[in-house]
Amino acid sequence: MFDKRSEKLGTERSEIRELFECANAMRAEGREVYDFSIGNPTAPTPEKVTEELVRLLREEPSARLHGYTSAAGDMTVRRAVARQLQSASGVSMSEDLVFMTCGAAASLVIALTAVLERGEEVVVPAPYFPEYAVFTETAGGRLVPVKTDGRFHLDLGEMERAITERTRAVLLNSPNNPTGAVYGKEELRALGELLRKKGMGYGKPIFLLSDEPYRELVYDGAPPVSPLAVYENTVILYSFSKSLTLAGERVGYLAVSSRCAQKERLFAAMAGAARAHGYVCAPALFQRALASCLSEKCDLGQYRACRDLLHTSLSDMGYACTLPEGAFYLFVKAPRGDGKEFSERAKGFGLMLVPSDSFGIAGYVRISYCVPLAVAEGSLPAFRALLASYR
Amino acid sequence: MFDKRSEKLGTERSEIRELFECANAMRAEGREVYDFSIGNPTAPTPEKVTEELVRLLREEPSARLHGYTSAAGDMTVRRAVARQLQSASGVSMSEDLVFMTCGAAASLVIALTAVLERGEEVVVPAPYFPEYAVFTETAGGRLVPVKTDGRFHLDLGEMERAITERTRAVLLNSPNNPTGAVYGKEELRALGELLRKKGMGYGKPIFLLSDEPYRELVYDGAPPVSPLAVYENTVILYSFSKSLTLAGERVGYLAVSSRCAQKERLFAAMAGAARAHGYVCAPALFQRALASCLSEKCDLGQYRACRDLLHTSLSDMGYACTLPEGAFYLFVKAPRGDGKEFSERAKGFGLMLVPSDSFGIAGYVRISYCVPLAVAEGSLPAFRALLASYR
Repeated sequence: MFDKRSEKLGTERSEIRELFECANAMRAEGREVYDFSIGNPTAPTPEKVTEELVRLLREEPSARLHGYTSAAGDMTVRRAVARQLQSASGVSMSEDLVFMTCGAAASLVIALTAVLERGEEVVVPAPYFPEYAVFTETAGGRLVPVKTDGRFHLDLGEMERAITERTRAVLLNSPNNPTGAVYGKEELRALGELLRKKGMGYGKPIFLLSDEPYRELVYDGAPPVSPLAVYENTVILYSFSKSLTLAGERVGYLAVSSRCAQKERLFAAMAGAARAHGYVCAPALFQRALASCLSEKCDLGQYRACRDLLHTSLSDMGYACTLPEGAFYLFVKAPRGDGKEFSERAKGFGLMLVPSDSFGIAGYVRISYCVPLAVAEGSLPAFRALLASYR
Repeated sequence: MFDKRSEKLGTERSEIRELFECANAMRAEGREVYDFSIGNPTAPTPEKVTEELVRLLREEPSARLHGYTSAAGDMTVRRAVARQLQSASGVSMSEDLVFMTCGAAASLVIALTAVLERGEEVVVPAPYFPEYAVFTETAGGRLVPVKTDGRFHLDLGEMERAITERTRAVLLNSPNNPTGAVYGKEELRALGELLRKKGMGYGKPIFLLSDEPYRELVYDGAPPVSPLAVYENTVILYSFSKSLTLAGERVGYLAVSSRCAQKERLFAAMAGAARAHGYVCAPALFQRALASCLSEKCDLGQYRACRDLLHTSLSDMGYACTLPEGAFYLFVKAPRGDGKEFSERAKGFGLMLVPSDSFGIAGYVRISYCVPLAVAEGSLPAFRALLASYR
């Protein structure tokens, strides 16, 4: 009666939603709950962003301020984005190849729709953000997950085997959701070489789609290397959701490398894909405000403190988990190797942890530590009791 | 190499864009230009909306204010929308069947994707908003235009012939873009009866999708009757773009009648369709601000003055045009019956008018009169000279 895929997507069981409801029910019973399920940022939005929003609302003529921008976005913010990416990567970037979007999900749907012909494949390191599979299917393609190494970094051998003549793109997410891995210069450079070689072999470019909503959330060392610097056929997919705590405002962008093959055609296809999906323009007020706020980021102190506390404490207790280099997720091995069982049992201790199965890998849970430090501190006895319950 | 449809949609000739560029080029040469091409509202956003936005930015904790809402939207605004529709239509409405969207285009893509199975048809009175065809194709369906009467109102006989067992929905847009027609109670009631009869005959409901971004822009008489009041299987598609001058902010909603067949399944399919297209939630700040601003609307005085001036003056000069009952478009017959020739010739007089062909009807131009009154006044000598050029 209705579109079958829409009905399925609209009714299927969502582990995160169920955890959310379970948490509410437990709170209603007066029980302590430590909700590590959702990636809704809690660090305040930078003051400068708020001030710029208020200034625009107070000073700009409203009809101009809130009017349509062109589909690709307001030229001022597009120019600022191109400049920022160019200065971070050392690669020439142009405002003509920046397309403002309604957030990361829109960036993904638009980029995947533009590059994929029916049946083509997108290679993705696993574990990966579950909606990648949904958006790839919307675009008529097929997602091909590839194993990563013990620290959830790229396994180039596995990548090489997975890339075939059907591969149109590789989708990277670094810093990674759900593992917190941040890919280093050498592995990115090796990936760039692999894609170049494979593309030449198949006589067509393989696009590197770099999904970077957590780009600014890196805790140690120098800022990560941009894929723009190591591979020419790169498209950056960005959202301001996490770096500026604007997750609900739906604003981000797509940026095509000036060195990308057929870049104008690719940009036109992205514009057409946005149009087909009903994306008229990115929210105008935020586009205008962000033009002068690109170098802002939320205070990482709270996330870093939660990361350090949870990683150290859980490791000391006997949990197996890798130190996240970025983002705000800690990926923890299930004591008996069954993430669903572990998540289910954790609920009994007031801990809301997302089982890893929907991320394309079994045997783990994801802890979203974008919570107040007091929540992380308060949860430690529960984590201790949870582990003890396995003995 | 890229998705063919995306490339085509991204590169095809846009008459409105070309008019915009032509206007810029002529201004650069120092020539007078009267741009009636685009429907970007110019009446100021109501003060109360701005004040509420500023208040929220000043008073609410930022991470909560800008955080994700649920996919269907913040419950406060959904409840307010349900109450408003219920009180306007007299039909019971529920917040559980209101889905906040990223504007009218998103509402259309989501509703069409949810209700259409591949190859099913959507009947639409012509002329119609050109993107209806794009969005119907995205949803896998086929748009079936139907002639209207001499005043661009519904021709029930034509509708009856067009509705077949392949018809899944009728798409209405009243007040209408591009004609300004506002459908009356009797024609809507007759349409409701027709859809009920046809649906019973085919053993499945035919949905009435009522696209109402211009609902508040009505110039004469009582507020128009809501389709909710005359037909049970109705879905309202709304956007705040025009009523509150927020076109670039991308916020609107879908609301399913509580009397609609299979309403929960339809709502779930809409949620799934939104997810498939990457619509995570409607912009959060605007959702929260609009909850207390639903009864606001922009001042219609300017649009009414432009309507009256242009309709009277152009009629007096000898142009053939119907008085628009709503929206901010005047649909004018091309003197030689060729809208493209007329639009092309009008450029020479500094007049930017959109030919009607892309609206599914030949022989007219659309004048968007959401312009300052001085622009409408200044344009009259040019309209006079343009018509004289045909003698």
